[in-house]
Amino acid sequence: MSENVSVTFVDGDGKQTSRKVGRGSTFIDAAQDLNLDIAATCGGRGRCRSCRIKVLKGILPPPTIMDQVQLGPDEVHEGFRLSCQTKVIADCTVLVAPPIAEGGHKILGAGVSEDTQFHLDSGIEKKLVAANTPKDENHQTSDMEMILVALGEPVNGDVPIEVLRKAPDVIRAKGGSLTVTTFNHRVIDVEPGDTTRHKYGMAFDIGTTSIVGSLVDLETGEQLASVGGVNPQAVFGGDLMSRIAYAQFNPQALRKLRSRVLAEINGYVKEVCGNNNISAGHIYKMVIVGNTCMHHIFLGIDPTYVGLAPYAPTVREPVVVTAKEALLKVNPNARICFLPIVAGFVGADTVAAVLATRIHESDHIRVMVDIGTNGEVVMGTRGRLMACSAPAGPALEGAQIHHGMRGAVGAIEKVEIDGDVTCETIGGAPAVGICGSGLVDAAAKMLEAKVINPSGLLRRDGGEGLPEKIKARIVEGDNGWHFVLTWAKDTGKDEDIYLTQQDIRQLQLAKGAIYSGILMLQKVMGVADGDIEELMLAGGFGNYISTESSVAIRLLPNLPLEKIAYVGNAAALGAQMALLSETERRRATTLAREIEHVALATNPDFQEIFVKAVVFGDETKRKSRTRTRTKVG
Amino acid sequence: MSENVSVTFVDGDGKQTSRKVGRGSTFIDAAQDLNLDIAATCGGRGRCRSCRIKVLKGILPPPTIMDQVQLGPDEVHEGFRLSCQTKVIADCTVLVAPPIAEGGHKILGAGVSEDTQFHLDSGIEKKLVAANTPKDENHQTSDMEMILVALGEPVNGDVPIEVLRKAPDVIRAKGGSLTVTTFNHRVIDVEPGDTTRHKYGMAFDIGTTSIVGSLVDLETGEQLASVGGVNPQAVFGGDLMSRIAYAQFNPQALRKLRSRVLAEINGYVKEVCGNNNISAGHIYKMVIVGNTCMHHIFLGIDPTYVGLAPYAPTVREPVVVTAKEALLKVNPNARICFLPIVAGFVGADTVAAVLATRIHESDHIRVMVDIGTNGEVVMGTRGRLMACSAPAGPALEGAQIHHGMRGAVGAIEKVEIDGDVTCETIGGAPAVGICGSGLVDAAAKMLEAKVINPSGLLRRDGGEGLPEKIKARIVEGDNGWHFVLTWAKDTGKDEDIYLTQQDIRQLQLAKGAIYSGILMLQKVMGVADGDIEELMLAGGFGNYISTESSVAIRLLPNLPLEKIAYVGNAAALGAQMALLSETERRRATTLAREIEHVALATNPDFQEIFVKAVVFGDETKRKSRTRTRTKVG
Repeated sequence: MSENVSVTFVDGDGKQTSRKVGRGSTFIDAAQDLNLDIAATCGGRGRCRSCRIKVLKGILPPPTIMDQVQLGPDEVHEGFRLSCQTKVIADCTVLVAPPIAEGGHKILGAGVSEDTQFHLDSGIEKKLVAANTPKDENHQTSDMEMILVALGEPVNGDVPIEVLRKAPDVIRAKGGSLTVTTFNHRVIDVEPGDTTRHKYGMAFDIGTTSIVGSLVDLETGEQLASVGGVNPQAVFGGDLMSRIAYAQFNPQALRKLRSRVLAEINGYVKEVCGNNNISAGHIYKMVIVGNTCMHHIFLGIDPTYVGLAPYAPTVREPVVVTAKEALLKVNPNARICFLPIVAGFVGADTVAAVLATRIHESDHIRVMVDIGTNGEVVMGTRGRLMACSAPAGPALEGAQIHHGMRGAVGAIEKVEIDGDVTCETIGGAPAVGICGSGLVDAAAKMLEAKVINPSGLLRRDGGEGLPEKIKARIVEGDNGWHFVLTWAKDTGKDEDIYLTQQDIRQLQLAKGAIYSGILMLQKVMGVADGDIEELMLAGGFGNYISTESSVAIRLLPNLPLEKIAYVGNAAALGAQMALLSETERRRATTLAREIEHVALATNPDFQEIFVKAVVFGDETKRKSRTRTRTKVG
Repeated sequence: MSENVSVTFVDGDGKQTSRKVGRGSTFIDAAQDLNLDIAATCGGRGRCRSCRIKVLKGILPPPTIMDQVQLGPDEVHEGFRLSCQTKVIADCTVLVAPPIAEGGHKILGAGVSEDTQFHLDSGIEKKLVAANTPKDENHQTSDMEMILVALGEPVNGDVPIEVLRKAPDVIRAKGGSLTVTTFNHRVIDVEPGDTTRHKYGMAFDIGTTSIVGSLVDLETGEQLASVGGVNPQAVFGGDLMSRIAYAQFNPQALRKLRSRVLAEINGYVKEVCGNNNISAGHIYKMVIVGNTCMHHIFLGIDPTYVGLAPYAPTVREPVVVTAKEALLKVNPNARICFLPIVAGFVGADTVAAVLATRIHESDHIRVMVDIGTNGEVVMGTRGRLMACSAPAGPALEGAQIHHGMRGAVGAIEKVEIDGDVTCETIGGAPAVGICGSGLVDAAAKMLEAKVINPSGLLRRDGGEGLPEKIKARIVEGDNGWHFVLTWAKDTGKDEDIYLTQQDIRQLQLAKGAIYSGILMLQKVMGVADGDIEELMLAGGFGNYISTESSVAIRLLPNLPLEKIAYVGNAAALGAQMALLSETERRRATTLAREIEHVALATNPDFQEIFVKAVVFGDETKRKSRTRTRTKVG
């Protein structure tokens, strides 16, 4: 696993120092190995910006939340990173101690306004006050009035009942020394003594398959813990449509799905509180994102109609409920904030991803693609954003592929064809199957080696002109023609691992859906490939896929590779940003209203686009009139 | 019980017609018996004002909520009543079909502004709308957006989660025909079809001893039902201080008290819904008043410190919670509105009573007295209001009196002394004891008959100069000297019913407390007896007490009797007004802030005032310098 990659550090004088480091090392560790001094004022905890670097060449590593907090989204976008937080993932060249914000705007182009700076303004404030108990019998006052007088700030007078219940004891417990917690100037808690340093929040991205979350210190912006796991609803339907089908017209099933995800989240809360020795009562804000179905289920809203044309949600506006309403075991008056939704299949997760990737602030066309069973594509620039959802199906997750599997140990994830086939597996274990990224890579290499042709047809002509060892791998078996990736005799396993003609077709349908989404938005917006400044791969799957192979098979458009970037779990990052900043949370609402939804399947141009998208290569190289139009659902 | 009283009707020409009618008949029934035509356009249901009368002479009957709604508080105050709603309670003269609002202001004096008119503006609106389901896949919208578009009114976009949960079904159930319910422009419910005519509210006055409530149609203002009973917390302490003592520093006891009152209120809800064939889900607003302790207990707030000097409440501002928060089984998003509090012993019930009696709009000094174990006194005029609480103790409820009892069958409630003693009992049954109103009446008549002297001393000199039969009633027994009210031989009961010297002293302490409250406010505000335009007796006890006797023993100041009026349960009326009108509910908040609280016991003048108040008569007739100053708690 510890593959070596090459890092080159450039200092202010232009002097370069290179070395190989283990993939996954932080840049600061790599620099220290080279005896390069990078200041880490905060001790490498991501709480200052002294150790910043700027990536000059190579793949830009996805920004962490601390990058966002310390450097701001503009600098992050320009390639600035905290060397203590950022891991080396590929060969690259970085500038040590770059001057912050100088020349930065030249790269992106002008026009990123001042107000896009990321500020820590979570909305949660804690203040230690010294309150007197009511003393005068004549001009009577009340415990709560004395607390608010001591707070000395204008707050909404509407105090939650739980706070009123605590007030008489709290004002008397420590001689009137007490901490008032407010959310957007509304009192949500009072506690005896000084608890001001305990101010936490959590962000969650609830996906159909998996849940990821983080515990964040709302005072410093520091991420204290990350949690995650499989969405426990998965036993009731692996993909979105089967999840909806399970809950459809069945309130009891909905309750079951809801209680599962609630129990999971409450489990995470307990876990992070235990591990970090904090009280769940000190978690005052949560931001939750997820696709529309996960969003509705979490809130107990029937997702039935999300699954029926026109796939409309019940609510798109941002929903904010208290933790007690949401049945979450944090502070009862913690605000649980769901980001807004664009459409039934363009959910709060996509809005969060847009928030994190700043497409809306770009002067040039940028595209974000989240590859999944439902792939979301967002394309746009300052002033115009469009989104669509592409029903890729589960092929890219290994389902409906003869030897398909999820990305687990033994899954083929990389394929080379050079005289013969070489496969890399996850964990270096003997191959037991092929995962999505392996599938994309295999197809790309088979295409290059002319084992398949651009229309996806596996050669059955005896493989004339192919190397012998490749020729031998094209076999007719029980499942029709197939191409062997690993021989049983080489792996010691019971059977060969191969791709069938049918597997290739499944891949074509999946990648065709995603690419259709991109092509559709290009068409609607009038965007040529050359107009695209950057294409960002978001989501878990995006992290593993080879961009080169993705372009080769036209899962992605034919862009120069340097224009394609991995941006990690942008949805989770967006949720964290909205957690740490009410400005960002408000921005999400504006964004969701601005994003125009483009329906794919009902668009009159869809058939033509899909036929173009389903082939392994650009249509322009072939004669479009001769192709049969295939109806694919 | 059906005592006859005399009613005289005066028509527009000044022609008078009189007759005796059963006490408790309505005026319209009495008029019809006389063949007098009074128009009752609405059929005598209190829903129009055609049958109005104006009381010219005699005791003004307490206004009903329908009087308030149809006539407005000014006219009500000027003696206008709906003859279909108002019962004859004493001899009186009324004007038939008086011109509304003519000359009215002349009586009260000018300056009652336009905005004091009572309007039906409960804040609850229901609107039938025709909503389309979302249709467009491209420009997606949501169920809730379609509902709000159909509503066509600006509302707060923050829709409760329960409404979101109902939305997908409701918008599809009846072809998009649905009813939206809002409270102050905030959506609180959606229902399929047209339910606009079902819009109800309830008002409750939760007293230490008893609870009274009413179900009101928020569309018409009509009172549909009234409910009430003993406060089920009473088993844990009959009076306020013992109730507080039970809950003090004992969260479990607080929970017990709270769940008892909640169960009681929920029982009433069930009862009125069943009897009136309405759904509890159609109750959208409740207004609850009560003293500070009842208020705090209802909300689950520890009343401990209300019972300890300086007797400060935890919250005085109006509290509004949802029914689900309050655990009340009406519409989950119904607003449960608690009126504000002035001080620990001047609670939301007093604020409601002020609201109903309009003291704050008066150009002349008016006084409201609510006699109870804690008597509240409010005195003032437009621009200045003062209130105090007088700890009368339970003597006026019959406690701590040798033969004392509550106002039940067999309780002596009226006493005449004219050569001998004649007693009237409740229900006309043989006397078994004496209730508070009987006690006040007995003392007044004993004072008049010189059986006791103004300092409260029972004669022990053989009763020189008294009629023989009176003389014979002054007896020395096991409990010291006492005065026999009924002889066992006359009633057939086992024992004589009498008042002891100690009973007289208890009465003096109780009435002295109330009168001290009045005197204290007079002193602080610089108000002489002659400055008082009106004294209103509020609360349950006030309805039974003889004003003449109350003045005679100086429970009340020495005012002409026509200046003293019964105003019934003003607190419950005020709650109903705030239920029917948000303007009134807001006014309650302003009022509560304006009322100045005067602490009685800690005032340096209290001792002097109390000593003056405790005697049966005016101090001025006696030499104040010679009296011993008694310390009374």
